[in-house]
Amino acid sequence: MPRRKQPTSHDVAALAGVSVATVSYVMNGRTDRRIPVETRDKVLDAARRLSYAPNRSARSLRRRRTEQVCLVVGSIGVPAYDQLARDIHARADEAGYGVVTIVVDSRARAEKAIDLLQQRIADGAVIAPDVGYLTESDLTGLARSGLPLVVMSNTATPDGFDVVRAPETAACAAAFDHLFGTGRRRVAFLSHLHEFEAADTHPSERLAAYFDALERHGVVRDDGIIVPGANDRVTAYQRVAELLARPDRPDAIFAASGRGAISAIWAARDAQLAVPDDVAVVGAGNLPESLITRPTLSTVGPSAADDFTEVARLLFERISAGVPAEGRVISDPWSFHPRGST
Amino acid sequence: MPRRKQPTSHDVAALAGVSVATVSYVMNGRTDRRIPVETRDKVLDAARRLSYAPNRSARSLRRRRTEQVCLVVGSIGVPAYDQLARDIHARADEAGYGVVTIVVDSRARAEKAIDLLQQRIADGAVIAPDVGYLTESDLTGLARSGLPLVVMSNTATPDGFDVVRAPETAACAAAFDHLFGTGRRRVAFLSHLHEFEAADTHPSERLAAYFDALERHGVVRDDGIIVPGANDRVTAYQRVAELLARPDRPDAIFAASGRGAISAIWAARDAQLAVPDDVAVVGAGNLPESLITRPTLSTVGPSAADDFTEVARLLFERISAGVPAEGRVISDPWSFHPRGST
Repeated sequence: MPRRKQPTSHDVAALAGVSVATVSYVMNGRTDRRIPVETRDKVLDAARRLSYAPNRSARSLRRRRTEQVCLVVGSIGVPAYDQLARDIHARADEAGYGVVTIVVDSRARAEKAIDLLQQRIADGAVIAPDVGYLTESDLTGLARSGLPLVVMSNTATPDGFDVVRAPETAACAAAFDHLFGTGRRRVAFLSHLHEFEAADTHPSERLAAYFDALERHGVVRDDGIIVPGANDRVTAYQRVAELLARPDRPDAIFAASGRGAISAIWAARDAQLAVPDDVAVVGAGNLPESLITRPTLSTVGPSAADDFTEVARLLFERISAGVPAEGRVISDPWSFHPRGST
Repeated sequence: MPRRKQPTSHDVAALAGVSVATVSYVMNGRTDRRIPVETRDKVLDAARRLSYAPNRSARSLRRRRTEQVCLVVGSIGVPAYDQLARDIHARADEAGYGVVTIVVDSRARAEKAIDLLQQRIADGAVIAPDVGYLTESDLTGLARSGLPLVVMSNTATPDGFDVVRAPETAACAAAFDHLFGTGRRRVAFLSHLHEFEAADTHPSERLAAYFDALERHGVVRDDGIIVPGANDRVTAYQRVAELLARPDRPDAIFAASGRGAISAIWAARDAQLAVPDDVAVVGAGNLPESLITRPTLSTVGPSAADDFTEVARLLFERISAGVPAEGRVISDPWSFHPRGST
């Protein structure tokens, strides 16, 4: 059977009545020179009519697919999600794919997300950590419907989807041992709102590690210094400022987010307290910003900085097939990164 | 003058060389049956060329709405977009709608977004400010296809879609007049990367206001103190630290983002410089965090805090119909909020 000839930029230029250079300019999305809108539209129109795609390998991936992947996140405005989104977008770009993002922060939104994924809004999906409203049976259902799926979770069991784990317990234990081992006795815990609410029923890994460390070091738990506020910088600053204004102020603060910990450093400085001499600070998540604070921020988190290229790789491997149906597990435990603030 | 006849699905079918059923299938964005990509593209192409929009009764026949709205943003990790996303999600929740977000930061991604919207991934869309890769003709095309659309832009002209403007020029002029009027002579401009690159060809509103103010106050422009770095906190901190270490350091910094300005305050404090006595700082955008810095941050921005409920309201009004076809304009100019940092 004769192979159909791929259209070239020359074909597009001929149909649009413009130069090959103009075709290349428009198709590559360059913006350093102004092209009249009419010319651009003529080129894009001709390209569409000829099914011309500038990149041959991108195009071969494209056959009969939505050319989209979906990123499902648990909330808006989490810096680590920004990096996750960047890494997914970068990998999608290489494959000629687009990315749609859905926020799932209620069961109603979870059900809408499941509907969209069942309707194949995308050729595959990544479920970010902390998307609590998607159950394992939701995930299994999606995987059984044939959707390539990568789930970031420390508890999910692979079942037709891949699981990427980032266990925190050992890193958190090391951080608390460091704090108590250097003489801190009143270690406050600045938590996310949801983990505060579930502290006694389903403690998060970091909160469970905190309770364990209190026991291990013979320190009585004081619920007065377990406060929600790690979700945003402003609340974190205010909660820590309040803690530090107390006569029995903490001598260390473990914040469940990087933003919260950075706000804690500023709150301490603004209260004329020295970090770490008067109050030590540990954050979670390893934001690049941890290195520009004074002092630099000690954290529990992934090595170096947040990096989700592996998650993106697994997803696109799954989309282009050839992976075990039962699902893979990749585990990359967090570690404790002591820096200036402890 | 005879009224021009509206194109029908028969016209589209004839031009595309497909059946009317296929046109209806494609234009209604249904996904329960596979249509070859080439066929779909032919139909969409023909519909575009004829400015065909599924007519009202056809649309109401469609009945199955997606119950999704789409938020199109220009980049990842912009705090003001977080608030925009929150406000859209909150309004969508009230209406029982979901939200999908698409990042458009290249022409390739713009085309993917247009395709998805043409395929009716959503019942309506909001285009965030600074989505530079979507042209006015793209927007007009989407509106003509029947998509309810609200465009946040200071330059777009409503054409079947609503436009929400937030003009910056007067607020920026007031901020610069305040800086020069209180004796500052070396006002550095910490810009976004894209506005730095387009400084001489298409200066942003705030950069144009800066150049105007320099002239108005008889200050010679020094390109050495116009630096990119407002995009993220770490780069902003580093660029400002460099500026403040120079023997001819600036006595004021105008940062094109709130994050950049907050990093500028920390960089100044870390360099043992007093804000505002040694160096004044102005930010753009009015983050809630502006009120917890020491000193509090002077900004140009919307009144109070970023608030996009009006954008969400317009979109859902448009989705539930009964709005003028030609499009509305709402304009809410920024103002200068002097606080502690100037």
